[in-house]
Amino acid sequence: MKHATQIQLAQTGILSPALLTVAEAEQWPPEELRKEVAAGRVVIPANRHHHHLSPIGIGRRLRTKINANIGNSSIIGSHESEIEKLRIAVKYGADTVMDLGTGSEIGEIRRAILAASPVPIGTVPIYHAACQVEKMTDMTPELLLEVIAEQAEQGVDYMTIHAGLLREHLPAARKRLMGIVSRGGALTAQWMQHHQKQNPAYTHFDDILDICLRHDVTLSLGDGLRPGCLADASDEAQFAELGVLGELVRRCRQAGVQAMVEGPGHIPLDQIQENMRREREVCDDAPFYILGPVVADCAPGYDHITSAIGAALGAWHGAAMLCYVTPKEHLGLPNHRDVRDGVVAYKIAAHAADIAKGIPGSRQRDDDISRARIRFDWEAQFALALDPDKARELRAESLQEQAAVEQRQTTTAATSENNAEENAESHDYCTMCGPKLCSMRVFREIQENPNPPLRNQT
Amino acid sequence: MKHATQIQLAQTGILSPALLTVAEAEQWPPEELRKEVAAGRVVIPANRHHHHLSPIGIGRRLRTKINANIGNSSIIGSHESEIEKLRIAVKYGADTVMDLGTGSEIGEIRRAILAASPVPIGTVPIYHAACQVEKMTDMTPELLLEVIAEQAEQGVDYMTIHAGLLREHLPAARKRLMGIVSRGGALTAQWMQHHQKQNPAYTHFDDILDICLRHDVTLSLGDGLRPGCLADASDEAQFAELGVLGELVRRCRQAGVQAMVEGPGHIPLDQIQENMRREREVCDDAPFYILGPVVADCAPGYDHITSAIGAALGAWHGAAMLCYVTPKEHLGLPNHRDVRDGVVAYKIAAHAADIAKGIPGSRQRDDDISRARIRFDWEAQFALALDPDKARELRAESLQEQAAVEQRQTTTAATSENNAEENAESHDYCTMCGPKLCSMRVFREIQENPNPPLRNQT
Repeated sequence: MKHATQIQLAQTGILSPALLTVAEAEQWPPEELRKEVAAGRVVIPANRHHHHLSPIGIGRRLRTKINANIGNSSIIGSHESEIEKLRIAVKYGADTVMDLGTGSEIGEIRRAILAASPVPIGTVPIYHAACQVEKMTDMTPELLLEVIAEQAEQGVDYMTIHAGLLREHLPAARKRLMGIVSRGGALTAQWMQHHQKQNPAYTHFDDILDICLRHDVTLSLGDGLRPGCLADASDEAQFAELGVLGELVRRCRQAGVQAMVEGPGHIPLDQIQENMRREREVCDDAPFYILGPVVADCAPGYDHITSAIGAALGAWHGAAMLCYVTPKEHLGLPNHRDVRDGVVAYKIAAHAADIAKGIPGSRQRDDDISRARIRFDWEAQFALALDPDKARELRAESLQEQAAVEQRQTTTAATSENNAEENAESHDYCTMCGPKLCSMRVFREIQENPNPPLRNQT
Repeated sequence: MKHATQIQLAQTGILSPALLTVAEAEQWPPEELRKEVAAGRVVIPANRHHHHLSPIGIGRRLRTKINANIGNSSIIGSHESEIEKLRIAVKYGADTVMDLGTGSEIGEIRRAILAASPVPIGTVPIYHAACQVEKMTDMTPELLLEVIAEQAEQGVDYMTIHAGLLREHLPAARKRLMGIVSRGGALTAQWMQHHQKQNPAYTHFDDILDICLRHDVTLSLGDGLRPGCLADASDEAQFAELGVLGELVRRCRQAGVQAMVEGPGHIPLDQIQENMRREREVCDDAPFYILGPVVADCAPGYDHITSAIGAALGAWHGAAMLCYVTPKEHLGLPNHRDVRDGVVAYKIAAHAADIAKGIPGSRQRDDDISRARIRFDWEAQFALALDPDKARELRAESLQEQAAVEQRQTTTAATSENNAEENAESHDYCTMCGPKLCSMRVFREIQENPNPPLRNQT
C-alpha cells in the first residue's frame, strides 16, 4: 500500500500520519475519523509530492474550512505578487488556497506556490490547458490529461474538474438569464458545441482517476452550471449537473480516489438549506465545497459581505468548505487588500456556522474575548480577534480622532476637568460611549456594590 | 381627531396622508395597510412637529427597514460632523436615523438633525437625562419625563425607553458573563440599585404614554437586558424582560400610542429564528427592531459583517427593522467611513431578506443588474449597485493595476499583440479572467452560434 490514497488507507484500517494530524487538530478519536475518510464523508487533500504540507480534513462534521483563490490573469499579476497573496491568505486563516492563474509563467508560479505553501493547493487544470492553445476549441482530451498529469506530479493537492456538465445540459443552460458563468463550464460548453462531442472530462474520467490515484490528488467535482444570478438559482440545469456529480462521486470512491463536490454560486437565503440537503442526498454526503453563495446580485464592491451571509448559512446547514468571494468579485482581479477582506469575512462565516453546528470548543474564543471586553483588556481583545491588525488599527484611529477633538477644544476653550480625568483612565472605556455612559463600566460598579444601604422602598 | 396618532386614525378607519404615502411606497392597498397600522403590526413613526418628513412604515410584512445610529460622545464629534453622518446615512439608504449624541451641544445638534432629516429620527432620552446630572443616580423621574417631553416637542419621531427592565431582573443579569451591555439598561440598573426602587420608566409609563400621545411619538421599547455576547444569548434575563415588553406593547396600543420592540444583540445563528418567533408571540406581532445580531464575538473591526449575517437571518424570519452595526463596534465611535460601511452592509442584509421573504418586486434590481452584467454594460451595473461609488472605485482600481502591469511589460519587453487587442475591447471582460477566459464572453459566443456545422459525433 505504499502508493495508496488516504481513502484506500482508511478503508484498509490504516491510520495514516496525515489522518493522525487531522484527528489531533479536530480533536477527534482517530478511529472515528478513519471511518469518515473511508466512507468518503471526509477528504484529506494531500498530494504525496507536496512537501511541507500540513494536512487538513474537509467534511461536514469537522470544523468548517475556507479557501482563498489567488492567481494572476493574462493581463495582471506577477510571481512575487501571487506569493504575497498566498502569504496574506494563510496569515488570516485560509485553510486551502486555489491557484487560478491564467497568465504568463503559470507553471513556474504554481511551482513556487507549492514550495511555499503549508496549506493544500488546488487548481483548475482546464485553465492551463486553455492557455496552451490559441483557441479553446483546439484543446484535445490528450492535452487536458497531460496538464492534469503534470500538475499532479508538481504536487497539486486537489483539482477542479468540470466532468458533470454534459452536452444534454446545454439546452437548459441556454434558457437562463445569465447562462454559464463558471469559467471551466463555459470553456467546456464551447468545446462540446464546436466539436459536437461529449465533455472530454466525462468521457476520459477513468484516465483522470488513474492519474489522481497515482499521486493521491483529491477531485473537486466542479459545478460548471452553477447559477450566476438569483434568477437562475436551483434550476433544471443546476440540478441536472448535480445528478451527474453524484454518479461521479460513486466512481471516485470505487476507484479509491477522494472526492468533494462544488456548489453554487448565487442562491437566495431561503433556498440555501434545501441546496445543502439535496447535495448530501444526491452525492452520498461527499464534502460540499461551496462558492459563497451570494444572496443578492446588486452589491458589487461588497460581495464578500453578500456572500458571507450565504456562506454562513450554507456551512451551518452542511457545507464542509467555503470558497471565499472578495470585494472585487464581478469587478476585477483581487489585490492584496481584497484577499485579506475576503479571507476574514469567510473566517467569520465559518466560525459562526461552527458555533451554530455545536462543533465542540468553537465558542471558546468568543467567551474569552467577551471576558477580555468586560476587563477592558484591549491587548487580550486584539490577540483574540480574527484580525488583530484591523482591530488595533480601528481602535487607534478612534483614539486619534478623539485626540484631535481635544486639541481643538484646548485651543478654543479651557480644557474641562472631565477631559483630564478621562485621559487618565482611557483604558476603561472606548470613544463610542465615553466613560460616564459606558455600560460595562457602569455594570462593574453595580457588581462591585451589590448591596447598598437600604433606602426608602418603592 | 386633530391630534390623533397614526394608530388612532387607522382604528377609526381614516386613511391619513402619512398612511397613503407609505401604502404607495410599499405598493400596498391603503385599506390593507390601515388594518395593519390599526392592529399595531405596522408603525409609522411621524411626530407631528417633524417637518419635511417622508413617512415610512415599519412592519414585518413590509420592505425591511434599516436604521443608522449617529451622535457624538462626550469626547468626540461635532455639529457639522453629525450632520454629515446623517447625509451619508440617508444617501446610502438608511430608512431611519437615531441620534445617540451624549456630548456637548446635544440639544442644538438634535434640532439641526431634525431640521435636516427627511427620514424619521429616533433618540434614547435617558442619555440626555444622564448628561444633565453629575451622577446618574441624581436623575429623578421628573427629569426623565422633562427630557422626553422636550424631545417630543422638538419633533423626535421615535424614542427608545427601557421600561421593561425591572428590579427583579437584576439577579439574573448578575449571573451573566457580560452582565448589562445596553447603555440605557446599565444606567437604569444603576439607578434602581442605588435608590432601591423600581425602574422610573416603568413606574411612570402612563406619563410617558401621555407625552407620546400628544405628539404621536412612537415608542421603541428598549431591551436593556439584550445579551452582550453569545454566552448570554437567549437567557433568563433576556426573556424575563421580553415578557414585560409584551405587557407594555398592550398598554401602548390601549393608550393609542404606536410601539415597536427592540431586540438582541449577540445571538448565535441557530437561535435567531426562535428569537424572532418568540417576540412575535409574546409581543402580539409588534414590529421587531433588532440590533444585528452579531453571530460571533471575536471579530472586532468587522462587526458590520458579523452582524449583517445575523440581521439577514433575523429579517427573513420576521424582524421589521435592522439597527446597523459598524466596523467600529466594540472599538470606538463610528466615523464617516464607518457609517457608510455599516449602512451598505445592512442594505444588503435587508435586501437579501426581502427576496427570501418574497416581498413583491424585491428581486427586480438583481435581475436588472444581472442583465447588465451579461451585456458588459458597466454604467448600468454601477447605476443599479447598492453603492455605485464603491463599485466604480474598485473597477477603476483594477483597471489602474492592469495599466501599471502593462506599463512594466512595455518597458521590459515588447508589447504583445494580445495586449493591444485586449485594450481595444476592454469593456467586454474584467481583469478577473481576462478576455479569453471570460465565461460570459465565451457563453455569448455559444449563444450567437447555437448550431455549428455537424462534425463527427461522439
